Amino acid sequence: MLFIKKRSKIAVTAGLVAMAFASSVYAEVSLKQATEIQRSLLTLDTHLDTPANLVMPGFDIMQRHSYDHDFNQVDVPRMNDGALDGGFWAIYSPQGPLTEEGYQQSRDTAILRALAIHTMVTAHPDTFGFATEAAQAAPIKAAGKHVVFMSMENSYPLGNDISLLETFYKLGVRLAGPVHFKNNQLGDSSTDPDGPKWGGLSPLGEKFVAEANRLGIVLDGSHAGDETVKDMIRLSKTPIMLSHSGSKAVYAHPRNVDDELLKQLAATGGVIQMNAYSSYLKKLPADPKRNEAFKGFIAMMQQAESGEMTAADYDKMQQMRRKIEHDFPAVKATFEDYMEHFLHTLKVVGPEHVGIGADWDGGGGVEGMMDVASLPKITQRLLNEGYSKQDLANIWGLNALRVLQAADDYAKSLKTSK
Amino acid sequence: MLFIKKRSKIAVTAGLVAMAFASSVYAEVSLKQATEIQRSLLTLDTHLDTPANLVMPGFDIMQRHSYDHDFNQVDVPRMNDGALDGGFWAIYSPQGPLTEEGYQQSRDTAILRALAIHTMVTAHPDTFGFATEAAQAAPIKAAGKHVVFMSMENSYPLGNDISLLETFYKLGVRLAGPVHFKNNQLGDSSTDPDGPKWGGLSPLGEKFVAEANRLGIVLDGSHAGDETVKDMIRLSKTPIMLSHSGSKAVYAHPRNVDDELLKQLAATGGVIQMNAYSSYLKKLPADPKRNEAFKGFIAMMQQAESGEMTAADYDKMQQMRRKIEHDFPAVKATFEDYMEHFLHTLKVVGPEHVGIGADWDGGGGVEGMMDVASLPKITQRLLNEGYSKQDLANIWGLNALRVLQAADDYAKSLKTSK
Repeated sequence: MLFIKKRSKIAVTAGLVAMAFASSVYAEVSLKQATEIQRSLLTLDTHLDTPANLVMPGFDIMQRHSYDHDFNQVDVPRMNDGALDGGFWAIYSPQGPLTEEGYQQSRDTAILRALAIHTMVTAHPDTFGFATEAAQAAPIKAAGKHVVFMSMENSYPLGNDISLLETFYKLGVRLAGPVHFKNNQLGDSSTDPDGPKWGGLSPLGEKFVAEANRLGIVLDGSHAGDETVKDMIRLSKTPIMLSHSGSKAVYAHPRNVDDELLKQLAATGGVIQMNAYSSYLKKLPADPKRNEAFKGFIAMMQQAESGEMTAADYDKMQQMRRKIEHDFPAVKATFEDYMEHFLHTLKVVGPEHVGIGADWDGGGGVEGMMDVASLPKITQRLLNEGYSKQDLANIWGLNALRVLQAADDYAKSLKTSK
Repeated sequence: MLFIKKRSKIAVTAGLVAMAFASSVYAEVSLKQATEIQRSLLTLDTHLDTPANLVMPGFDIMQRHSYDHDFNQVDVPRMNDGALDGGFWAIYSPQGPLTEEGYQQSRDTAILRALAIHTMVTAHPDTFGFATEAAQAAPIKAAGKHVVFMSMENSYPLGNDISLLETFYKLGVRLAGPVHFKNNQLGDSSTDPDGPKWGGLSPLGEKFVAEANRLGIVLDGSHAGDETVKDMIRLSKTPIMLSHSGSKAVYAHPRNVDDELLKQLAATGGVIQMNAYSSYLKKLPADPKRNEAFKGFIAMMQQAESGEMTAADYDKMQQMRRKIEHDFPAVKATFEDYMEHFLHTLKVVGPEHVGIGADWDGGGGVEGMMDVASLPKITQRLLNEGYSKQDLANIWGLNALRVLQAADDYAKSLKTSK
């Protein structure tokens, strides 16, 4: 399947020319100007892990938080500050054992997470609008609301029952990736310590791709191993997305993709959304003391998520974390490191195949951009690199919506051809 | 398991004595007085089919409807008029084919119905309170809100995967019956035209009972065949409920239970909630013309439920129904017919084992009581029959909550004994 559009090649060329003359031709855009320009665009981050916070005791998406205090990165006040309209709010499932019991627990948790996302929207009808179709995003923004698409990070909760993908489709999921940190029943992860198990998608994973196509769900190749991504591109009838990934040419981490795969992704109409997860952006020094201090913290997080923790206990947990962060501060990549991935990827595939998925509330954040309030820095930098407002419109949302539209169109074409 | 309490026998005796002298000892209670008394009690109907309306185009639970105009029987203004605090809001699933595809479709629809019930509560936080424990009901009433327990009418959506009962438990279900109009994978219905298939619960149905017990879900024997109910009573570790049923001694319909089974239910601590479904209350004349006129209407209802109908088309559908109701008016049982079942059942098992589940929005309603606004008539009549305010408190809610508490206590005892 070839989706190359002439316009995208022209756009790449225009971008490069603009970049070459950026410093001489354009006056520098201020952050304030960039923010205003960004506000005029439909802005979507394709990987918001914020729904995990929705089930935390006492968390209120309407209130302003700060990363330094409680480590949250997304709330309505900061979305407004950072001119972020919304995005794909993820049902994240940690990888568990490939057993019936594991599948069932994960399925239930994922269904409840979908309920939590709907509850957020229903509880604040003037603030959020739930979207299942590409064309719904702009009207939601026009109504002064934030856009809530739903996605699934790790489709482990489907177990061996691919029919559950339709359940999640009906609940609103429109973007789904097969795997997370480890290989599972659907295919190989990019980061399984045991290496590949299937050599790409598993046979069940191939069915997963077909079912996503049938339903109109965009396939998400982030976290998937390279061979898995290639299988997805090969098998999918519609362009795929890497909802939060980086460039292997800039930093050779398994979570990033090389230029050849990027070109293959773009050639099939797909899109990569740039991830701001520090340890995927450059080699950071090992920090065994910090890791040691964090031991036990994960278990507490899970307890908090399960609803078995009071708000007071959750506050105590956050206090502990502040102490750890104080005693063993994280070494982060910088905003410049992030932009290096971003700009390289733009050079390779052009602004019609790049977007933003910074892994907010899922580990994302770099020095100089630790929450969504700082997002206009990206716009400022890209404008100053010579990218046009139309490029920014594509990057900030239209590319992702194009891919979603293609998935939807394909699914509808199956229905009408019946 | 024997749950007979001395107090219940005394209550029956006291009730009978009071009834015998009602006309001479007590002044007649007016409807207004009865309404005020009812308002002071926690009032729950254990079978509200209203959630089916929640997904109908344009339906608004906050607005006043009328049965004559749109055939809805439950909304907030009329709950307020009729002093109904709330009840068990049912996820109703029509019985479909016992195939994987049938199971999957039904599972998905049931999950979405649970979402619709939560959405109702979340959208109106000052009006509704969601409850999963017996002890939550009174505080919700005290806060001036309506009580929303969730139940499952027909557990067909579980398919062959009993683990899905936990999914629904986590979504909030605390009362579940195995079957509806027809036999299914879990057991025999009381009304399958082909007669019994399993002779009671199926082997999977026995697992269903054990799983409900383990989770703390009350088993609902309404719609189940008599042998199925007996199996449920025999196997269940906690008292069961008939959420909307009647007396076979008054009218020998398969949906009703005979005195012997009633006594068995009561002896094990269970409760029967009196159903106001006209054609189960007495023999009504056949009406082939009306039935003919209704053909095709069911399919339209399903289309409306599926979300594929506009509000305008739904209005048209309601107009059609109004014409049918005008041309071929339904013959209904009367309020007196309803009370005959009610009073007989009270005589047999006493006011600690009887409650109210009138099948509102699911076919319930009798001449003189066609919506929840008329519910105080029941209170008036029972008070005038000599039942005490405490009896009314038991009938209106405490009996159902006792059974729910027992189910919860049992499930908790399993956890602590681990």
